[in-house]
Amino acid sequence: MVTIYSLCGKDGIHYSPHVWKVIMALHHKQLNFKIIPVDFSTIREIENGAFKSVPVLRDGDRVLGDSFEICEYLETAYPDAPSLFDGEGSRRMARFLESYCLTQLHPPLAVIAVMNMHNIMHESDQAYFRAKREERFGMSIEAMAEGAPEQRKILRERLAPLRAILNDHPWIYGDTPLLPDYVAFSALQWCWVVGVRDVLEEGDSVRAWFARCQDLFEGAARNPAPH
Amino acid sequence: MVTIYSLCGKDGIHYSPHVWKVIMALHHKQLNFKIIPVDFSTIREIENGAFKSVPVLRDGDRVLGDSFEICEYLETAYPDAPSLFDGEGSRRMARFLESYCLTQLHPPLAVIAVMNMHNIMHESDQAYFRAKREERFGMSIEAMAEGAPEQRKILRERLAPLRAILNDHPWIYGDTPLLPDYVAFSALQWCWVVGVRDVLEEGDSVRAWFARCQDLFEGAARNPAPH
Repeated sequence: MVTIYSLCGKDGIHYSPHVWKVIMALHHKQLNFKIIPVDFSTIREIENGAFKSVPVLRDGDRVLGDSFEICEYLETAYPDAPSLFDGEGSRRMARFLESYCLTQLHPPLAVIAVMNMHNIMHESDQAYFRAKREERFGMSIEAMAEGAPEQRKILRERLAPLRAILNDHPWIYGDTPLLPDYVAFSALQWCWVVGVRDVLEEGDSVRAWFARCQDLFEGAARNPAPH
Repeated sequence: MVTIYSLCGKDGIHYSPHVWKVIMALHHKQLNFKIIPVDFSTIREIENGAFKSVPVLRDGDRVLGDSFEICEYLETAYPDAPSLFDGEGSRRMARFLESYCLTQLHPPLAVIAVMNMHNIMHESDQAYFRAKREERFGMSIEAMAEGAPEQRKILRERLAPLRAILNDHPWIYGDTPLLPDYVAFSALQWCWVVGVRDVLEEGDSVRAWFARCQDLFEGAARNPAPH
């Protein structure tokens, strides 16, 4: 049984986009897995303190800590299960999208989701989260949140390249979902699981694709609190 | 002989990124071609007024006006020449990059290049260009240009997804250059041909890749004024 460690809030909500990437990959590979919840105070205790962030995956003796490396590992370790890739091009696309999400989508998403993230965290994590964000952005998280309407607009503009593909195709790279889909999906899933569910407008092909991703694996991603 | 119409400034400089996409594709397909220079006042006269923008391509009886459609046409019409694509994935990647360039890179590039663009234009085009830009941005082009240092910083951040690939691979999609490379290259070539040649920093893998693109086809793209 594969085990992953995941940042978890109240009501068992798993809210790390990088963990969601791995959850989708594990479903795609048809693997049984167990999710071990951690919070900011216990993240350093994972696997004897070898990691500073989640996800962390343990599979027998193997312990890995980067979401993309984890997906590559799953692909190699379980070659008979459905493939997450379709050739080298899909790897490049997934890698491009990972950086695209991190550098172009996460900044607006971090503002859009800030209050909801705070509110779903355990109380012990809220003070840490608040201090870290307020240090990074130089303002209270309440002041950050006032920028959310503007950041929603920016987010929708930054989704244009995805939209250009999804206007013509049901999935980003192939005829069926592959890792490029899960990478991009997980960024938006982050907002969704903490309760911000109206960032994509009706009629947007990105919204329809997001719903298709949530329908996969018997609607696994419609549960913000898998265990 | 294939003919393309291209926006052209003083000294024969061709400064449309969309035209450069097609120039690179034509070289890749090893086709002889002729470039017919136009300016803003004559663009409406191309092929009896059927087009509002460049590039426009004429190949025998076929006349086409969108750079991506032109590349798709060249691929289909000249199947024995080297392919611009490597399967459906490379089409998706090229399409994604086209939208990524248009929506994420062109806005900062438009500010970074504004004064140089103006200055390389024929005088008859300068007034039209100035009026259009000042209407769109609500300020003089000189005031726009004051934002260039900030926009250079934004541009470098927005190149992160390309950098993520180019740190590990010489070309964006394949082992050799393909349309995804030419699409992304052409956005940056726009700045280069008008004389802004220092936007990419030493040591940046995007800069090294840009130079490799310029080396292709006997350094064709090192000449801002092909004819």
